Amino acid sequence: CILSAYIMNETYSLLFKRLGSSCRLFFSHDPVKIMRARGQYLYDENGMQYLDCISNVQHVGHCHPSITQAAAAQMDLLYSNTRFLHDNIVLYANRLAATLPKKLCVFYFVNSGSEANDLALRLARQYTRHQDVIVLDYAYHGHLTSLIDISPYKFRKLEGQKEWVHVAPLPDTYHGIYREDHLDPGQAYADTVKSLIEEAHKKGRKISSFFAESLPSVGGQIIFPTGYCKRVAESVHEAGGVYVADEIQTGFGRVGSHFWAFQLQGEDFCPDIVTVGKPMGNGHPIACVATTEEIADAFTANGVEYFNTFGGNPVSCAIGLAVLDVIEKEDLRGNAVRVGGHLIQLLLQLQTKHPLVGDVRGVGLFIGMELVKDRVSRKPATEEAAHLVRRLKEERIVISTDGPWDSVIKFKPPMCFSIEDAERVSTCIDQILGGWLTLKNTSSLQHSFPFDEIYI
Amino acid sequence: CILSAYIMNETYSLLFKRLGSSCRLFFSHDPVKIMRARGQYLYDENGMQYLDCISNVQHVGHCHPSITQAAAAQMDLLYSNTRFLHDNIVLYANRLAATLPKKLCVFYFVNSGSEANDLALRLARQYTRHQDVIVLDYAYHGHLTSLIDISPYKFRKLEGQKEWVHVAPLPDTYHGIYREDHLDPGQAYADTVKSLIEEAHKKGRKISSFFAESLPSVGGQIIFPTGYCKRVAESVHEAGGVYVADEIQTGFGRVGSHFWAFQLQGEDFCPDIVTVGKPMGNGHPIACVATTEEIADAFTANGVEYFNTFGGNPVSCAIGLAVLDVIEKEDLRGNAVRVGGHLIQLLLQLQTKHPLVGDVRGVGLFIGMELVKDRVSRKPATEEAAHLVRRLKEERIVISTDGPWDSVIKFKPPMCFSIEDAERVSTCIDQILGGWLTLKNTSSLQHSFPFDEIYI
Repeated sequence: CILSAYIMNETYSLLFKRLGSSCRLFFSHDPVKIMRARGQYLYDENGMQYLDCISNVQHVGHCHPSITQAAAAQMDLLYSNTRFLHDNIVLYANRLAATLPKKLCVFYFVNSGSEANDLALRLARQYTRHQDVIVLDYAYHGHLTSLIDISPYKFRKLEGQKEWVHVAPLPDTYHGIYREDHLDPGQAYADTVKSLIEEAHKKGRKISSFFAESLPSVGGQIIFPTGYCKRVAESVHEAGGVYVADEIQTGFGRVGSHFWAFQLQGEDFCPDIVTVGKPMGNGHPIACVATTEEIADAFTANGVEYFNTFGGNPVSCAIGLAVLDVIEKEDLRGNAVRVGGHLIQLLLQLQTKHPLVGDVRGVGLFIGMELVKDRVSRKPATEEAAHLVRRLKEERIVISTDGPWDSVIKFKPPMCFSIEDAERVSTCIDQILGGWLTLKNTSSLQHSFPFDEIYI
Repeated sequence: CILSAYIMNETYSLLFKRLGSSCRLFFSHDPVKIMRARGQYLYDENGMQYLDCISNVQHVGHCHPSITQAAAAQMDLLYSNTRFLHDNIVLYANRLAATLPKKLCVFYFVNSGSEANDLALRLARQYTRHQDVIVLDYAYHGHLTSLIDISPYKFRKLEGQKEWVHVAPLPDTYHGIYREDHLDPGQAYADTVKSLIEEAHKKGRKISSFFAESLPSVGGQIIFPTGYCKRVAESVHEAGGVYVADEIQTGFGRVGSHFWAFQLQGEDFCPDIVTVGKPMGNGHPIACVATTEEIADAFTANGVEYFNTFGGNPVSCAIGLAVLDVIEKEDLRGNAVRVGGHLIQLLLQLQTKHPLVGDVRGVGLFIGMELVKDRVSRKPATEEAAHLVRRLKEERIVISTDGPWDSVIKFKPPMCFSIEDAERVSTCIDQILGGWLTLKNTSSLQHSFPFDEIYI
């Protein structure tokens, strides 16, 4: 269709003219113009359907009618700020409180995961009166000035590491310093944090917080070893700091068995601050920070208010409530357990057939399949992963890579992803990897992205 | 009504239980529970109507049906992120570009004014490779860690002034160091910025940017003297820095005669970066940064991408486009000129009658009326202003104060504010000030807010 091709080119050139080129498109070599979406399916300008394996923001499925309805109804009534009393914000805070351990009972509503993490940093610093932050290697916590400082994934390419930032090894038992054959990797990795704290103390520095995604995403869909978080929290508390669990990508039932990914670490672990973002509004800009009364009180004690113009407005909260309703009504956590479990089994079968599949890891609908050049060296198969993504796009499956070497095929689909979808994507991967040798010419494996970054 | 009083108390107590008490409510001594709103009117849980003089976020009027319709239609189609091509973002960028001087042609879409100012700071620093920032006294640029550092209104109460921040005097010709009787206050205030730069240079520091609201709001609804911005920009450019115009509260036609408040300073002044927020989405969380190709190119040059999960999504842009349509179709800029002009005339008449009214200033629907103890000392009448706000609430008019001493009654209503609304509020103020002596008992003038802050 010449007209749509024209519109496509027009959009593309305007995009580069008007929007700079700082945001990398999916499939930048041949971008897709999506016109509409429903559930786990995307439709381009020719009506072509794509299966969406990565839109974790559209948590309960793209354009869920009951979310649209709740938003429109509240938009017609009131879209003001939180300087006026309104029921929605307290109803929403109550619903969120019911999903969390009792001590996490105070909520701040903001507009993005980045705003949530920045506020978490302010809360931690004001409560502890310490300045320093420990983060995990390869972590990404947001696009704000303060968060680039605590994101090794970013600051290594920019202004470098600040003196108040300490980087702990990523507890990655596939690539890291302690691996699956270690007797207690949870303890061993937690000890690296303890050592970092001791080193910081020797320099006279004081730890305000340990920041970590409950399942590191940009780091490569990592699952923490057993006991890691609890032991880290003990060391951090001993140093007078707090544990901040970044659940921006992992919260809201994505792991299926629990509402929050940190709960995978057992009932005897509880963070002091939890940040949430992407899935909360199913696309709508809403995010939040949950914390304890003690931390909230310390934040208020100086008499300086925290006000967020849009945060917690009646429409955002109506949308948030509607998302929670859909998760429950459609048993999306149960679906994540069933479909995610099945997908992992299918990918493990692929691992037995294809030497390229080095590791399969995941929980619920948060899954990574890591490609390696060979299984002994575990050398990341970056080009092969990029090529697989491109070939899957030809099969109308939208997926992308993650991890320090872009070698992890990541799955974080809308939570309505079905058994049939899982089988379709696994069959396609099987076929592509099966026909791998015929495809493996260097020109088609060229990695031509303008940015050496991965998708979040 | 006992039931609604119960619900009211319930909401209020839950609010304090679940949301901490960091955000101050309007009328915290007797908060209003607003259930719905339309145009410039708010309705409480008893159906009581209030005239809204301050909701600048609800720019084209609360709950405008065509905004709701545009949002719902797009929510039903696609609410994805900007990793896929979509027409809305480029159409919106084009429409915004048409309102700005040609050189401001690249746009970054974000979720809040704070995110916009943080990005502006990053852009300025990366482009200039300088670190330091000059800001105006009493300024507030947002709630993020980086912005509290450049907001004297906040950092004076918190961690204090950073060595890379330089505070210039607010060009306030009513209270400031150069007043309305000065021959050229624009030049005189611009010279204070020049001196600050010279002092910074002597310490070996380098200026990345001058940040200022185009009409300082928290500073007390200040109108810059003629020639100020152009001369400041000259000094800042000479020092290798850029001029950042914060139009978060003042853009989008609020001043009536122009689309942007910086344009009041004449055609020979153009900022290098403009940030926009509150009015863009009529309540929906959307904001943006406009800048030059050179600055955008410098930001991209290091190959590190800027990605904002929700920023510029198809729904936010559909809402943004609908807001621009309403501004044009309903001639809201023309309305701001007519109604704002009339309101200023009415307030100037009050000034001739009531000694308490020290100054009336404003442009379009951005107006301040400053109360003073007496006109010679110009001592701020803080308690009287607070009392006037409370009395107006009894008359069902929602208004609030601004300025370093909370002595400026501020008007920044939805842009559909009418001549009748202007006359109603001015008549009420006249009557309240007329009956002033009978009301002036100390107990009713007590200032009992938990925070010594002003509303934004």
